[in-house]
Order: sequence, then C-alpha cells, then structure tokens
Amino acid sequence: MTGDPATAVNKEQAVTEEVLASFDATPDPRLREVMHSLVRHLHAFARDVRLTEHEWESAIEFLTRAGHITDSRRQEFILLSDVLGLSMLTVAINEPAEPGATESTVFGPFFVDSAPEIPLGGDIARGAKGLPCYVSGQVRTTGGEPIEGARIEVWEADSDGFYDVQYTDDRSAGRGWLRSGANGEYRFWSVLPAPYPIPHDGPVGDLLTATARGPMRPAHLHYMVTAPDFRPLITHIFVAGDPYLDCDAVFGVKENLVVEAVHHADTPAPDGTHPQDGWTSITFDLVLATHDGR
Amino acid sequence: MTGDPATAVNKEQAVTEEVLASFDATPDPRLREVMHSLVRHLHAFARDVRLTEHEWESAIEFLTRAGHITDSRRQEFILLSDVLGLSMLTVAINEPAEPGATESTVFGPFFVDSAPEIPLGGDIARGAKGLPCYVSGQVRTTGGEPIEGARIEVWEADSDGFYDVQYTDDRSAGRGWLRSGANGEYRFWSVLPAPYPIPHDGPVGDLLTATARGPMRPAHLHYMVTAPDFRPLITHIFVAGDPYLDCDAVFGVKENLVVEAVHHADTPAPDGTHPQDGWTSITFDLVLATHDGR
Ligand SMILES: [Fe+2]
Ligand SMILES: [Fe+2]
Repeated sequence: MTGDPATAVNKEQAVTEEVLASFDATPDPRLREVMHSLVRHLHAFARDVRLTEHEWESAIEFLTRAGHITDSRRQEFILLSDVLGLSMLTVAINEPAEPGATESTVFGPFFVDSAPEIPLGGDIARGAKGLPCYVSGQVRTTGGEPIEGARIEVWEADSDGFYDVQYTDDRSAGRGWLRSGANGEYRFWSVLPAPYPIPHDGPVGDLLTATARGPMRPAHLHYMVTAPDFRPLITHIFVAGDPYLDCDAVFGVKENLVVEAVHHADTPAPDGTHPQDGWTSITFDLVLATHDGR
Repeated sequence: MTGDPATAVNKEQAVTEEVLASFDATPDPRLREVMHSLVRHLHAFARDVRLTEHEWESAIEFLTRAGHITDSRRQEFILLSDVLGLSMLTVAINEPAEPGATESTVFGPFFVDSAPEIPLGGDIARGAKGLPCYVSGQVRTTGGEPIEGARIEVWEADSDGFYDVQYTDDRSAGRGWLRSGANGEYRFWSVLPAPYPIPHDGPVGDLLTATARGPMRPAHLHYMVTAPDFRPLITHIFVAGDPYLDCDAVFGVKENLVVEAVHHADTPAPDGTHPQDGWTSITFDLVLATHDGR
C-alpha cells in the first residue's frame, strides 16, 4: 500500500478484473454475459460514488430488512425494483415493437394466482368497496381481427386503496378472470379504481421518505391478458384526471393507458342493472402482439 | 409504440431520465448523488444485457430467497456482496493511503459482538477443535511507535471449517478479544485456521454452482483492531501454503497478509506450556493508520 493515487486506482481495477475472471468458466454463455455485466456495473457504481464502509453496511441492512418484511403477501423486492424504475425499464426493453399493440406497464406485487373465474359480464369486485364500474372492450390483433377466448385476468385496490391481500382476514375481492367472447368482446363489473400508496412501512418507504418522494400511485386497474399464439400483455388502465398521473411512485403511467371513467346517475347500465348510488363506465380495447412481433 | 429501434431506445432513455429526476429533490446531497449513480448504473446494466422479464423474475426470487435464509446467524447478503467482489472493492476504495499500515480485507458474515475478553496470552479457542496455535506480534504506528491498550478482536473457524455460530448448540468458541500490552505486544492461543466453504446451501451457493465457482476460502484468522486516534483495522491473516490462496471465493487474499505457521513438536511454547500433540506459531504485527491518513 502506498499513497500514490495511481496505485490505488490500479488496486481497485485489479479487484474488478479478478472478480470478472472468476466468472469466465460459467458454462451457460448467457449467465456468463449477465454476471460479467453485473460485476462491471456494480463495481463502477461503487467506484463512482466512492462507496464508504458505512454505506455498504447500510445497503446490507436495507436488503436484510427488505428480505424479512417479504412474505406471501408482501414483496418488498418488487417494490424496490418498481421505485428504482428497473421494473418499467425491463418493460420498455421487452416491449414488442409491433405498431398498434396495447402498451405494457409494471406487473406490481399484488397479483394472486388463484383468483376466481367470472362469467362474461360478471362482477370481479365481489364485495370490494367502491363505486360500481362497468369495464368493457374488445380483445383483438394488431390487424383488427377479434380474439375469442383470451384469458383476461384483472385486479385492483378497493376505494380505500387496499388490495384484498393487504387485509389480514384472508378475503378475496377485487380480482378475477374471464374469457373474451366470440367477437373478442369482454365486459365485467368492478369498482372505480382509487389512488393508493404503495406499502411504505418498510425499507422502501424509508427510502421514499429520505428522498422526498411520495408513495402514491394514480388510480388504476391491472390486466394480464393471455391467448395462444399471442404475447402475454401485462398492463394497467389509469383513470383520466387522477392527481398522481404525473408522479406515479413506480413510473408506470403511459399516455395511451389513460382512459376516461364516465359517471352515470339516471341511466341504467348496458346489462339493464341500475346501481342505486350511480355507476361509472370505462371502455378499453386490448390489442395483442404476436409472439414473433419483436 | 412503433417498430423504430431509435424510438425504442428513446423510450428506454426516457424511463431512466424520469427515475433520475424523481430523486432530484433528495434533501441530503450525498444520498442524492448515490441514488443518481445507482439508477444510472442499474439501468445501464439492464439495457446492456437486454434483461428479459424472466431474468428479472429470477432476480426477485433470488433476493427473496436470500432474505428468507438470512437470520441472526446467517447473512446471505454479505455473502452475495463477498462473492461479487463488492466487499473487497469497498475495502480497496476505503483503504487508507498510509505507507506501511497493515492492509485490510473483508469483514465477512461471522463476526459476533459479544465475544468474551481474554487476558494477554489467554486462549480464544475455548474448546474449538484444532491444533493449538500461538499467535503473537506487536501493535504499532506506521512510525514504529508501540500502541498500548489497542483492542484486538479475533475470530476463526475450527478445524472442521465451522464458526461457532454455524453450530446449532449456541456454543461460543474460536473468538475473543484482548488488549495490547505496554510495549504494544499481544499474544494469544487459538487453533490453526483451516480452509472452509462459505455457506453454500442457499441462493449464493446456487450462483457459485451455476457459474462453476468453488465455495472455498483459504485458512485464515480474522482481526478487528481498534485504538483511539487510529483507523479501525479489519483484516485476516492467511496461512502460507494453503491450496485455496489463489481462488478465495470472496477475493480476500493479499500477499502481505499471508504468514507462515511454524509447526513445533519437541519444544515448549513461549509461555512454558507444551501441548501434547504439538503446536504451531504465527507472528504478525498490526500496524495501524491514523484517522487522517487518507
Ligand atoms: Fe396496483
Ligand atoms: Fe472467515
């Protein structure tokens, strides 16, 4: 060890070179490529900021807390990826370059595998609080052909801003799946989405606080749409006029995904029902890209 | 969305710019700098490798597993930092540039705060299996002045390659602390360090397997040495001739930290004792840098 800065830089570079070399024998070439790139960028970050030992300890503690708060109902690492924009960047990197297809956005941490099937026109709210919202549209190809039998999985928070899994009573509400009809049409009842804060009582919330960022997401309804021969579509619709459209904590908003929620008082719904406190409607078509469209 | 590659790159860049801007109002300038750099490098990594959604999911799952295996006795995130060389790079970045000071190496995940105090010349093994090893030397300044009363914390694996905390019986062995004497001298009994694998039954072990890397560390004894007005020294000594000196799983080896362990059979130890199966000795001086030496 000497006081010569050039020697110090060389010692840092030597660590990076040694670590890179340790991954040279990785049998899978893709894993080798990913690990080499990860090491280069991780080390470049530490060098650029002159990472202190105390900051390194804070990072270890942050990840440890994130791991311990994560369970079957809470996914702090997805939240972390979301607030660092890694989730949306991954979406952008993998976005199919097929003109006219519906755009994707973040998956989020609140999907549940076991949501119930709902008939076409049925109700996914199943007790979730909120103003009734009738959502309808068509599933089709970028060429305009209807797609029959697409599986449309939807999930949303209630009007208090909570997903069912955030309650401790094991309820299932505000989620379900249905299939598009013969002409690609779909329709279901839900509740009007409300803005909500991402869970912010853990390390990710502390990070948002320390960086003067808010935890709010604009009101949205999640979709995951799958059909044979088409690329799975993971997206949301956002409600026009929401105050958080410009500062989504997870950067998920895209202009084409913002839709009008029309409020109705005196008119009955298309299916003849007439919710007594009024209802809302949203129309949104789902245009799927083909698997080889990228 | 269009098929134009330039547009796709712009969309990716737009995500990064939006995320960077979200950290602009961070009150603490250092945290702002760190977050900006982290986002730039994390996003550059994802873009460079064209990170797939499946790979993103694997990363979330990896971190989740690391979080769940981590507890008061197991620290998978430190292991991860270690095998990615981030720990040694952080050491290199923070190494005091004071000629002659003892070099640092990784802290590792096996330090325990509550190790017992041992008198000068006492035994830190306290039942840990292994060939007795008498370790001695002097604590001094880079100018050669002895440092009296330095706190020397040492810890090591037993001859089976396990630290006490890796056993499930709550034993405390192979660790302790003592103070240097009036002339900076220190001495204690321990056991001869043995090579050992880092814990590899978790996600970090899976990563090592997938990348054809071994989990072994060359035999070593950990030190943490503190004294008022001096920079804390966190280091190891390694045993010359160890087969893993060139492929330490955590990249911790430095040439100046490799020492000879001398084997003795017929001669008694300096303190007059004579372990019946023989004993070993190691001499290592600890040269502390001043706080303003960097
Ligand atoms: Fe959501
Ligand atoms: Fe160790």
